[in-house]
Amino acid sequence: MKILDQLKFDSQGLIPAIAQDENSGEVLMMAWMNKESLRATLETRRATYWSRSRKKLWAKGEESGNIQEVISVHVDCDADSVLLKVHQVGGAACHTGHRSCFYREVVDAGMGFKESGKVLFNPENVYKK
Amino acid sequence: MKILDQLKFDSQGLIPAIAQDENSGEVLMMAWMNKESLRATLETRRATYWSRSRKKLWAKGEESGNIQEVISVHVDCDADSVLLKVHQVGGAACHTGHRSCFYREVVDAGMGFKESGKVLFNPENVYKK
Repeated sequence: MKILDQLKFDSQGLIPAIAQDENSGEVLMMAWMNKESLRATLETRRATYWSRSRKKLWAKGEESGNIQEVISVHVDCDADSVLLKVHQVGGAACHTGHRSCFYREVVDAGMGFKESGKVLFNPENVYKK
Repeated sequence: MKILDQLKFDSQGLIPAIAQDENSGEVLMMAWMNKESLRATLETRRATYWSRSRKKLWAKGEESGNIQEVISVHVDCDADSVLLKVHQVGGAACHTGHRSCFYREVVDAGMGFKESGKVLFNPENVYKK
């Protein structure tokens, strides 16, 4: 895939990837991709990231079932980050059960967080160890 | 600011920051912040990033006038990325004159790009060298 060679992956071979809900416009999460995960994303049309903690490809939703169907993939002006517009199956992207991983808002002039958005699933029921 | 100590900055002291248009929901850009730039952002309520190429604080719009007024700041579940909801003064976030930096869409199964969105200003008139 030609575009894989036009993107600027960092010194660890990674590029930041933002997932946005195609309908609501809500920013769901930010994760990382390497070439292989971006190739898989484009080929399967399902968001596939690189897990830095587990050091392996991470097909989003592989455990929870909350996959992301990829509607379109966008690249920024510097070719060093990508934006996925997705249909979030199950309604929640975050492993905490929140719709968006960005469920905490900075308040009180930077002294604390306020949580927003409901919890759509119970992580204990979804992630079986 | 307490929250600055709760965020996970990377080995270079940086955290990815996504700017989203508060009204339209459009993702405008992704850039980087260090502690100092996030502190400046929270204090001034104007988006201030860290320029990795120029190695200095970058008050967005300092040259173009297209500042970003910060409506709210959100932190993700892992506390390793932030989302700013902003009012984009001048209508365009990108130095190319596009509203969003993500003006290129991957098409043809990863073989090329398609540009979308109009150019709202002429960079040659805005960035005087």
